[in-house]
Amino acid sequence: MSSAVEFKNPQSIAAQVQATRRAARELARLSADQRNQILLAAADGLEAREAEILKANREDCESLERKGRELSAGTASAALLKRLRTSSAGIKEMAKQVRDVAKLEDPLGHVLATTDLDDGLTLQKVSCALGVVAVIFESRPDVVPQVGSLAIKTGNGLVLKGGAEARQTNRVLISIWHDALSAFSPSLRPVICALTDRADVARILEMDRYIDLVVPRGSTEFVNYVFQHSRIPVLGHGSGICHIYVDSAADLKMATKVVLDAKVQYPAACNSVEKVLVHQAIAEEFLPALVAALQSAGVEVRGCSRTTSLLSQSQIVPATEQDWHTEYGDLKITVKIVSDMDKAIEHINRYGSRHTESILTQNQIAADLFMDEVDAASVFHNASTRFADGFRYGLGAELGISNSKLHARGPVGLEGLLTYKYKLHGSGQTVTDYAQGKHTFKHRRR
Amino acid sequence: MSSAVEFKNPQSIAAQVQATRRAARELARLSADQRNQILLAAADGLEAREAEILKANREDCESLERKGRELSAGTASAALLKRLRTSSAGIKEMAKQVRDVAKLEDPLGHVLATTDLDDGLTLQKVSCALGVVAVIFESRPDVVPQVGSLAIKTGNGLVLKGGAEARQTNRVLISIWHDALSAFSPSLRPVICALTDRADVARILEMDRYIDLVVPRGSTEFVNYVFQHSRIPVLGHGSGICHIYVDSAADLKMATKVVLDAKVQYPAACNSVEKVLVHQAIAEEFLPALVAALQSAGVEVRGCSRTTSLLSQSQIVPATEQDWHTEYGDLKITVKIVSDMDKAIEHINRYGSRHTESILTQNQIAADLFMDEVDAASVFHNASTRFADGFRYGLGAELGISNSKLHARGPVGLEGLLTYKYKLHGSGQTVTDYAQGKHTFKHRRR
Repeated sequence: MSSAVEFKNPQSIAAQVQATRRAARELARLSADQRNQILLAAADGLEAREAEILKANREDCESLERKGRELSAGTASAALLKRLRTSSAGIKEMAKQVRDVAKLEDPLGHVLATTDLDDGLTLQKVSCALGVVAVIFESRPDVVPQVGSLAIKTGNGLVLKGGAEARQTNRVLISIWHDALSAFSPSLRPVICALTDRADVARILEMDRYIDLVVPRGSTEFVNYVFQHSRIPVLGHGSGICHIYVDSAADLKMATKVVLDAKVQYPAACNSVEKVLVHQAIAEEFLPALVAALQSAGVEVRGCSRTTSLLSQSQIVPATEQDWHTEYGDLKITVKIVSDMDKAIEHINRYGSRHTESILTQNQIAADLFMDEVDAASVFHNASTRFADGFRYGLGAELGISNSKLHARGPVGLEGLLTYKYKLHGSGQTVTDYAQGKHTFKHRRR
Repeated sequence: MSSAVEFKNPQSIAAQVQATRRAARELARLSADQRNQILLAAADGLEAREAEILKANREDCESLERKGRELSAGTASAALLKRLRTSSAGIKEMAKQVRDVAKLEDPLGHVLATTDLDDGLTLQKVSCALGVVAVIFESRPDVVPQVGSLAIKTGNGLVLKGGAEARQTNRVLISIWHDALSAFSPSLRPVICALTDRADVARILEMDRYIDLVVPRGSTEFVNYVFQHSRIPVLGHGSGICHIYVDSAADLKMATKVVLDAKVQYPAACNSVEKVLVHQAIAEEFLPALVAALQSAGVEVRGCSRTTSLLSQSQIVPATEQDWHTEYGDLKITVKIVSDMDKAIEHINRYGSRHTESILTQNQIAADLFMDEVDAASVFHNASTRFADGFRYGLGAELGISNSKLHARGPVGLEGLLTYKYKLHGSGQTVTDYAQGKHTFKHRRR
């Protein structure tokens, strides 16, 4: 077990994070091949220590089941248990993902732009690591290999704080990463700093001098807590209130299939659909079939007043204002009939969480307009909102999903861990000479 | 005078900002030529209404001078007055800058990446406007045409809150922009929302639902206030504690010239040098000449204990720990003798504000290492820190300078006002089909 995990008092957490910062500087100095070598060693370690991971994971699962029985918190802990449990196949998948990240192009030191400000005075914009990133996560053990590989690929230090329910599993996974780092050089071990106490979260969020980015992965409440209490920039998403707009020119059979997928396939996901906006011209034809399909899949359907009066025979719960603001994360959906697409766009821009919004239509012009005007990280045409995901987008590993428009937006991979710096190469130039007109700027872009 | 300027109560400010958001959507929908047409009309307006601008500016300056005499705040208001006052040449320069922005390539709708997730399921990453940006600024009237042109070029709405001292000047400048927008279409006038009350600042910082980015431009105290109180992401820089490291292999004549430029040319600038770190091997030869040059330029020199004992004949003020944390913004500088470059890098990474750091050396390997390892937006080799500036970098207009590593870093132009969205073009795909293995992702990057 990592000795780092045993540190407890705040002073030593600060010392640990500073050590992570120093080790990250050393990591960023390595060649891409050397960083990939560490990744491949970690992937081998995952496979070699499969039995140990599975044993630790069983312990975590059993302890969670015990706690669930004590608290009689059946449903909540069943979902948690599902996210927590891993398997032999799951570990092989983790190792594969790490090797996939090793195959990606080296993201460091890319010259993004070059400008000769003058002869002998050249400005370069160069990609570089952020420094140190903290990831605070609940249950899912695959977060460790995902963000571990992204951090090492990009030359960043990593502060990891996992949930108590995954303590044993995380301990083994992190020790695999520590071993891979130490095998390359013992001084690299602190690249990953593992914290386990809930109280450490508040300390992490204060360390804006030593941590450059915080990524919270967990419940909406937890993510919102981090957004509200962090002095460090946060990459994450509080809620996912995703809409599907079914246009007057929609293929109605496709629409029923897509809405059903977006609601039912995994209702707890942040990219599952919560509201369906239906153009009034097709409401009468479309809604009875849609509502029947949803209800027979066990979905509770709510509706605006036009919907309830149109479908007075179906059991539609009248929607309140609060429904438009609510992420159910469950088998519930609310339907609204709109008079035109512009009303749908207005509704989405007013109530949406800027996560993922989809239009279903055979009219390309309407689709283009919708996708331009809706303010969201992901805007889809004739596809289920459930596609908004780093793996499905082909990003390799996923750092997180960002609802912010700044830095990185939507599903975020490697690029979330990078920044750039300006390097100016001169030969003794002073601003005085330019201010006095002895020299003038040439600004030649290369 | 803009009727918008006369709104006072909080409710109507929210209504104004929402109107700005709607008008910005309309602006972003225009073609690049149409947006440039508005910019050129504004540039013409600046020149046509020169006399009116100058008269308003004289009124502001006179009122500031009166206030300065009343408060006997001579020096402070002299600097403020210098920033506030404009001239015929200044207005011509504003118009030129606006026309330069019109000449830049259209930044909207760039396809940054395309991936076929599968046949008939294509993901595009496309550049787009942020939405609404608030700029809160003090004195300098050229902020209005600079950020006005950047906002219109990028299809963003703009909330402007200028300082009371520039009220008349800003009123004329903003009316020129309103006229240029209205001439194209009256519905575009709200693209720029002008607020004038100090109390409006607090309201702006709460409107995270309607404003996407806040750019504070003013004193360190003001910028820090915004960082601490904003619910909206902030682009700015609190302080500029810039260092120059004079290496053992430095050209000492060049070093004296560059340090002098970086301190004396405009000491109030955020990119002026505050600390000089000198390699011990050249300290004895270099420091007497440097200190003499600085002192004869009126600079108060402070020093670490090694510096004061080396230069016991010069009047060096012993430095305290506080000095390393202080941005003087004045004719003061602190010198530290370091035993090697690594100590210099450590000192900078510990005390610097990640703004601009420079190494003076003839040793290219040392320069490269310094530039890689120092954690700052701008890292220079053999050049004055004063070059860190959007105009000098050739960015055209400058939105601001960012000390944050996220989104945009260093001097920021157009790119600070852009984000991207993911557009997924499908034909009715569901995640169920992929989860069940009926389809598999192809992830072909184009």
